[in-house]
Amino acid sequence: MTPPIIVLTTDFGASSPAVGVMKGVILTINPRATVVDLTHQIDPQNVLQGARTLGGSHRFFPREAIHVAVVDPGVGTSRQALLLTTPHGRFVGPDNGLFSGVIRGYLPEIPNASGLVPVPQGCSARALTQPRYWLDPVSNTFHGRDVFSPVAAHLSLGVPDQDMGSSLETIEYLAAPQPSISTSGQRAEIRGEVVSADHFGNLVTNITAQDLGQARGITIEIKGCVIPGLSKTFHDEGPDPEAMLVALISSSGYLEIAVRDGNAAEYLSAGVGDTVTAQTANPS
Amino acid sequence: MTPPIIVLTTDFGASSPAVGVMKGVILTINPRATVVDLTHQIDPQNVLQGARTLGGSHRFFPREAIHVAVVDPGVGTSRQALLLTTPHGRFVGPDNGLFSGVIRGYLPEIPNASGLVPVPQGCSARALTQPRYWLDPVSNTFHGRDVFSPVAAHLSLGVPDQDMGSSLETIEYLAAPQPSISTSGQRAEIRGEVVSADHFGNLVTNITAQDLGQARGITIEIKGCVIPGLSKTFHDEGPDPEAMLVALISSSGYLEIAVRDGNAAEYLSAGVGDTVTAQTANPS
Amino acid sequence: MTPPIIVLTTDFGASSPAVGVMKGVILTINPRATVVDLTHQIDPQNVLQGARTLGGSHRFFPREAIHVAVVDPGVGTSRQALLLTTPHGRFVGPDNGLFSGVIRGYLPEIPNASGLVPVPQGCSARALTQPRYWLDPVSNTFHGRDVFSPVAAHLSLGVPDQDMGSSLETIEYLAAPQPSISTSGQRAEIRGEVVSADHFGNLVTNITAQDLGQARGITIEIKGCVIPGLSKTFHDEGPDPEAMLVALISSSGYLEIAVRDGNAAEYLSAGVGDTVTAQTANPS
Repeated sequence: MTPPIIVLTTDFGASSPAVGVMKGVILTINPRATVVDLTHQIDPQNVLQGARTLGGSHRFFPREAIHVAVVDPGVGTSRQALLLTTPHGRFVGPDNGLFSGVIRGYLPEIPNASGLVPVPQGCSARALTQPRYWLDPVSNTFHGRDVFSPVAAHLSLGVPDQDMGSSLETIEYLAAPQPSISTSGQRAEIRGEVVSADHFGNLVTNITAQDLGQARGITIEIKGCVIPGLSKTFHDEGPDPEAMLVALISSSGYLEIAVRDGNAAEYLSAGVGDTVTAQTANPS
Repeated sequence: MTPPIIVLTTDFGASSPAVGVMKGVILTINPRATVVDLTHQIDPQNVLQGARTLGGSHRFFPREAIHVAVVDPGVGTSRQALLLTTPHGRFVGPDNGLFSGVIRGYLPEIPNASGLVPVPQGCSARALTQPRYWLDPVSNTFHGRDVFSPVAAHLSLGVPDQDMGSSLETIEYLAAPQPSISTSGQRAEIRGEVVSADHFGNLVTNITAQDLGQARGITIEIKGCVIPGLSKTFHDEGPDPEAMLVALISSSGYLEIAVRDGNAAEYLSAGVGDTVTAQTANPS
Repeated sequence: MTPPIIVLTTDFGASSPAVGVMKGVILTINPRATVVDLTHQIDPQNVLQGARTLGGSHRFFPREAIHVAVVDPGVGTSRQALLLTTPHGRFVGPDNGLFSGVIRGYLPEIPNASGLVPVPQGCSARALTQPRYWLDPVSNTFHGRDVFSPVAAHLSLGVPDQDMGSSLETIEYLAAPQPSISTSGQRAEIRGEVVSADHFGNLVTNITAQDLGQARGITIEIKGCVIPGLSKTFHDEGPDPEAMLVALISSSGYLEIAVRDGNAAEYLSAGVGDTVTAQTANPS
């Protein structure tokens, strides 16, 4: 039998004892589970960043994986605890929009505002309401340990979804800022923003390869610097072999700004929220 | 057969190669072991913090777990290497007080000074003296790799405790500063201190829920700020809905100071060692 | 059957989602694999540091382990992707010198310049050229996810080396700066440098125990401070019981500078590249 896989994503910080304790709770209930970390470096209480990370990463895990995700500023308040089942993984965590990136692909259209949305077809959601699958007592401040981890561990043992609580028809969705696109004759301008800076200082934007289309003659502008065209690799000579700054499509499909063998965030003093503009001469 | 679980706790820092090497040593001896991290973020050489962390966390792991703990400024000196067996886990590491938080619950009373204490009833301890269960050669500076990890791996294969070395009657205990409580008529003052700041900037104190008892009319003071009463959650309105600062009982049972959606350590410029005072109007 | 062990070493930073995604890719292909981290704290794009870390650590993992190593500034360019098979582990990653520390022990002599070297006797190397063992599509910027991890996972399922690509006769080697040794009569001077500072601020040099030989009367100099002789442990009184600074042979066999219960990197304001000189009165 294949060992069940439980994936953890939190804002607890690298190597926090809170993460270790969640693993202890899971292994106490199911010692055969394989517990892996997606990341614990979501910025504290940044639910939107957690949603992006889960949205972009969960498809690289097995379809049978059970994800426990905790970015949960409202822990202990009236926000619901959730089990979301999708064609590509089950997800346990707070119902605060943290799974927006996961459900986006299943929604008929992307909502342009935050709020409750119907659970997409092919998915199902349940409120976690059965304390027999939780630790006892349950604290007000650490549901990752007391509710989400034990629920995931019991699911991994074969307890069916429906035993965890009653079915939900809607769940919370958190709308992310989308790039704006304006066209004028043969020219288009796509205005987005930096949504994260990785460990290398690469700046990831919310502009997708699709937004840029098949355009030729693209120029990218950030913090007053103009990058004449897209490179294929970090090391690629690109359109301007002298230039340190390169723009490219990241491995997640988003426009990314980098410095060859360097750190773009430091070089540009740029970070999350900074505007990035793409001008295309021939919009597709 | 259930895979044996080996839990690592060190002050080596997140993702240190020294931690990876310990896992390599364990898996070389027992490839079926499940190795998990409690944390590697104990402050360098802070044995007391390691003791608190193990004390507060080990009960969330299986009773059969084998813990390897390394906060070991005296590595290579005459300090003993230890196997401590308790009703809730076995512990391998230096005999320098690192397991004080684990044994406290088994001692008839809490020692008020550091030093040797008798091994509690129901527990047993052994000095690690059998080099056949160590790496060869043994360095003077990395017993986590050369002694503790291989001993844990051999235990996980079923080697009995008594093969590891001779029985000990006493082990080192490290006394933690306790809050002082003074009463005057109907009023009590409990004076404690901040013992850690977590990744969110929440300040954990050494004052327990029991210390505060069933008191009503509690006010908490830290760094000149007064918090009028306890909240139940980080997001709870608490007694003063305007206030950013909240005091609450943490998921570990200790008084904790937080800022709603913020960072109390930064907001108060507070950290480990700062005084926290609780005034209660009706001591229980 | 023993579960196969896959070891990850990258410069992605602790707890990066990129590491989590690699684990997801591996477990999707082989859910029975045990995936462990050696470290993800290699300095960004520091291939030489990655080579040192792998060289010093891989022998602590099982001989059957499959290592995935990614320090890969040239990802997506013409640099080859590599499978290196040695008597002590298989290694998957870029052919940019990252495995220099691994092959050094198998080479008849240590090359004194960087460049292509013949694959050592007893080892074999292959270029990864078979896309059927990769993800589809392959990005230009994340071969750790798209090429190296899936190749390692397929190897762990028993796919033979030769299915991965054609045999190579040479691979890239990266020469590390070696200490210089000058002798004058009975005296010798060994001049090396700091190559890393660990989490405790201990400064590891490139001077080996062998370089120092059986010399008596050793004095070590760094940043104008003189350390009169070697200690055996961090806590050892050493030749000068008053002195905070100690020099000792590290658990990896290199000369290391430490401060008793302190941080040598901070104390000396020293770091990678700083000169360390050892004077010996009686060279062996």
